[in-house]
Amino acid sequence: MKAMMISALAGAVLASTAAQAQLKPEEQVEIRQAGYQFMAWNMGKIKAQVIDGKEPYDQAKVAAAANAIAAIANSGMGALYSPDTTSAQLGKQTRLKPEFFDNLEEAGRIGGEFVKHANQLASVAAGNDQAAIKKAFGDVGGSCKSCHDKFRAD
Amino acid sequence: MKAMMISALAGAVLASTAAQAQLKPEEQVEIRQAGYQFMAWNMGKIKAQVIDGKEPYDQAKVAAAANAIAAIANSGMGALYSPDTTSAQLGKQTRLKPEFFDNLEEAGRIGGEFVKHANQLASVAAGNDQAAIKKAFGDVGGSCKSCHDKFRAD
Repeated sequence: MKAMMISALAGAVLASTAAQAQLKPEEQVEIRQAGYQFMAWNMGKIKAQVIDGKEPYDQAKVAAAANAIAAIANSGMGALYSPDTTSAQLGKQTRLKPEFFDNLEEAGRIGGEFVKHANQLASVAAGNDQAAIKKAFGDVGGSCKSCHDKFRAD
Repeated sequence: MKAMMISALAGAVLASTAAQAQLKPEEQVEIRQAGYQFMAWNMGKIKAQVIDGKEPYDQAKVAAAANAIAAIANSGMGALYSPDTTSAQLGKQTRLKPEFFDNLEEAGRIGGEFVKHANQLASVAAGNDQAAIKKAFGDVGGSCKSCHDKFRAD
């Protein structure tokens, strides 16, 4: 039963290790950090327009930002997490704790929630309901924080 | 008439300079490089599956990769090109030639082609026509190269 409970992401992480053998650990880290940085930029744009009101709300820009976040979230980043890419092997190049690989079911659950929330954000950002965007934005941010709290070193 | 000929991207570059004033030049460079690196990773996945045949073709993975490229291309990266972000100001942090800002119409034209081709790639990648994917992939790559040849230092 336990084998069947392994989440899709956990399975993807394991399955991807072979397929991505051509990517060095350092490359995996660089590319996943690039993805998170680009998502963070787009989260910042939505925050400025919908949460903080620091910039005027522009539906097309918020939708484009949310689409970028969702498409990156759905791009199979699990392939960038082979077991030799933690701070134990790579030191300060990454903040990924080795514990990530002792808790793949939990990591997979959080990853799945993140993808679900990112898709929801893109879905509501296609419209003009700023309250719904705000809620979905908060859910995405919560997923980010949940993973950082558990698996990212300070 | 000339003013009316300024492309959408060129206009976006100019208009964005004020809106993105909170981003330092170094941050703009980092984020745009992150975007290109993440797109390159996804181009590599499509190349391996559809062009080189080094990995088996997986329609869902190719579609996800193409969606990530398109969404990043549509995310308003022009905002990351303020005139103080070239190699003239930032040295080796960036390969962007200062000439970019003397040729905004040309840069905008290439940027527009890139977005168009990225959207076409995502569109055909939703289906199974590998010949169409191959063609669209080549067009995206051609847009990348066109900009690199003109505006990126070796």
